[in-house]
Amino acid sequence: MSLSDGMNYAPKGKPAPVVSPGEFVIAAVALDHGHIYGMCNGLVEAGATLKWVYDPDPAKVAAFCKAFPQAQPAASEEAVLDDPDVQLVASAAITSLRCALGLRVLAADKDYFTDKAPLTTLEQLAQARAAVQQSSRKYMVYYAERIHQEAAVFAGQLVKQGAIGRVIQVMGLGPHRLNAPSRPDWFFKKSLYGGILCDIGSHQIEQFLYYTGAHDATVVRSQIANYNHPAYPELEDFGDAMLVADNGATQYFRVDWFTPDGLSTWGDGRSFLLGTKGYIEVRKYVNPGSHDGSSDHVFMANQAGEYHYEVAGKVGYPFFGQLIQDCLNRTETAMTQEHAFKAAELCVKAEMQAARIGLDS
Amino acid sequence: MSLSDGMNYAPKGKPAPVVSPGEFVIAAVALDHGHIYGMCNGLVEAGATLKWVYDPDPAKVAAFCKAFPQAQPAASEEAVLDDPDVQLVASAAITSLRCALGLRVLAADKDYFTDKAPLTTLEQLAQARAAVQQSSRKYMVYYAERIHQEAAVFAGQLVKQGAIGRVIQVMGLGPHRLNAPSRPDWFFKKSLYGGILCDIGSHQIEQFLYYTGAHDATVVRSQIANYNHPAYPELEDFGDAMLVADNGATQYFRVDWFTPDGLSTWGDGRSFLLGTKGYIEVRKYVNPGSHDGSSDHVFMANQAGEYHYEVAGKVGYPFFGQLIQDCLNRTETAMTQEHAFKAAELCVKAEMQAARIGLDS
Repeated sequence: MSLSDGMNYAPKGKPAPVVSPGEFVIAAVALDHGHIYGMCNGLVEAGATLKWVYDPDPAKVAAFCKAFPQAQPAASEEAVLDDPDVQLVASAAITSLRCALGLRVLAADKDYFTDKAPLTTLEQLAQARAAVQQSSRKYMVYYAERIHQEAAVFAGQLVKQGAIGRVIQVMGLGPHRLNAPSRPDWFFKKSLYGGILCDIGSHQIEQFLYYTGAHDATVVRSQIANYNHPAYPELEDFGDAMLVADNGATQYFRVDWFTPDGLSTWGDGRSFLLGTKGYIEVRKYVNPGSHDGSSDHVFMANQAGEYHYEVAGKVGYPFFGQLIQDCLNRTETAMTQEHAFKAAELCVKAEMQAARIGLDS
Repeated sequence: MSLSDGMNYAPKGKPAPVVSPGEFVIAAVALDHGHIYGMCNGLVEAGATLKWVYDPDPAKVAAFCKAFPQAQPAASEEAVLDDPDVQLVASAAITSLRCALGLRVLAADKDYFTDKAPLTTLEQLAQARAAVQQSSRKYMVYYAERIHQEAAVFAGQLVKQGAIGRVIQVMGLGPHRLNAPSRPDWFFKKSLYGGILCDIGSHQIEQFLYYTGAHDATVVRSQIANYNHPAYPELEDFGDAMLVADNGATQYFRVDWFTPDGLSTWGDGRSFLLGTKGYIEVRKYVNPGSHDGSSDHVFMANQAGEYHYEVAGKVGYPFFGQLIQDCLNRTETAMTQEHAFKAAELCVKAEMQAARIGLDS
């Protein structure tokens, strides 16, 4: 659970409960990705009561219970889904299995909160959309690189205040450290993880839709490569894409598994928001070369001046409290269902359309 | 001639003459763009003897002679081209006229050094290639954002040393301040300036070819827009493109005219070089938010560590001395002719293929 391990990166913020104990009961089911820790942290800090944990692997359950002693190991997934107390199930299953689990959760008349990417195919998306329609339940997604990242949240606040005018382009860099020996087998099988544009690319597309206020977009170019990891033939170590939104704004993003060992954190994630009246740069996890261990740097220049904000610990993560309220009140303040699905749709399309590139040798 | 005016940005370095006075005689012809100052600075610091200046506008000539009192105003372009002493003609004509001038210079059996973009159409490129073939003279190009930018030069040295392994992607941001009232009319006529991808995009493509060692590339997507300047309908205030090189490396670049007034310099130009063993970020003209007026920041992370280099005044501009030697010795150490033309070809193609995008209203 350290900053140097992207797989288990689990931000902690100031607890800001929106409900009293027992008012909003959740369970954690499927612990295949370490993101489940961040997801549960966020919900618990916002007041959720974590009642159950279930995974077929007892070692994963034991580790989880160390971090969350309040969670009781459940005997089965069914036991969790059959408990009428449970209002929401948080999950970080193998990516290709996230939809099937979500369908079971919705069928049990509970809300679903899954790690991203929430699904890996357009068929799954159609099933998920139908299940939401039928159940009126939520199929929400942990797009952590925005909702659980204070600098990204703060950038959204600046945009909403009109600080840089209308956002015309969003550029994102999502480098990650591979740390291959720490990864499970499914991480290297494309049918399971969904491809790099679907997996870590989903963060990027979600941010694009969010910062530009777009409702839809077209993937106009996407590319994938395995430039330098022949031992993992189904790994895509590089991907990038350009999108044009329905409102005319455009995006470029690059994702990769090339964070070098010498970098002081797992990835130098950046966002650049270009507006008609200024721009914002977000340095999410490191201000490279500063060697001070700080994160959450936001830079802005607009008509009035040039600014540097350090916002770690100052902004919090409003998504989680909003999500709990949304579940209780059947509202959509944290994120609309359509937004969550649209980002998923576009990342699957980016992956499907991707040209494969690579170095000659 | 201040840092805040990109149009007349003219870097000064430590003089490092490679020839004695009179050994390499140059003239400045066509002063339509302020880059001519940087071009002549670079050559004079490397030892060139600036003998003549010519432009049909006496005001431009008078201003030039203030900066370079050694230059004699010539009566005509012909007078310069007829002088057997002159070995190279440096020019910053209106972009669409640069090729025609170059053809006259080469026909006069002199080398040509033009501001970028060196031409605006594939027809001009064919003429330029033919003229070089026939004359054995050089049609060299002032791709200033690399050759006259110490951080960019230093990044090239790091790459050559293998500090980040093989370069698999180059990403470039080339924002510029518009400062529309200071610009001449031709700046807003597309047939004259060539479009944003041809104009300031040419820097980006040159850097891509240079840092990756590629010899050719395909423009796989390019876009242009006039997002926010309806008063200048032929201005493209935004452009971006993706290219894939013959060696499998890839590029994304964005260029725009949206530098806000509050930024402390004319543009927050960046390059990101992603290698198989690390990456480099170049912050060329400003380290935003530092408010210290410094430029030429290079950041690198590789297997060994995380580094921040401040290289202003420490690297110099080897291109100019190499170009003089190349002219004297008929070598190609500063830049090959094919490299200069290939960057020009690709920026014209990027512009020709560009999809027009824009905001709805």
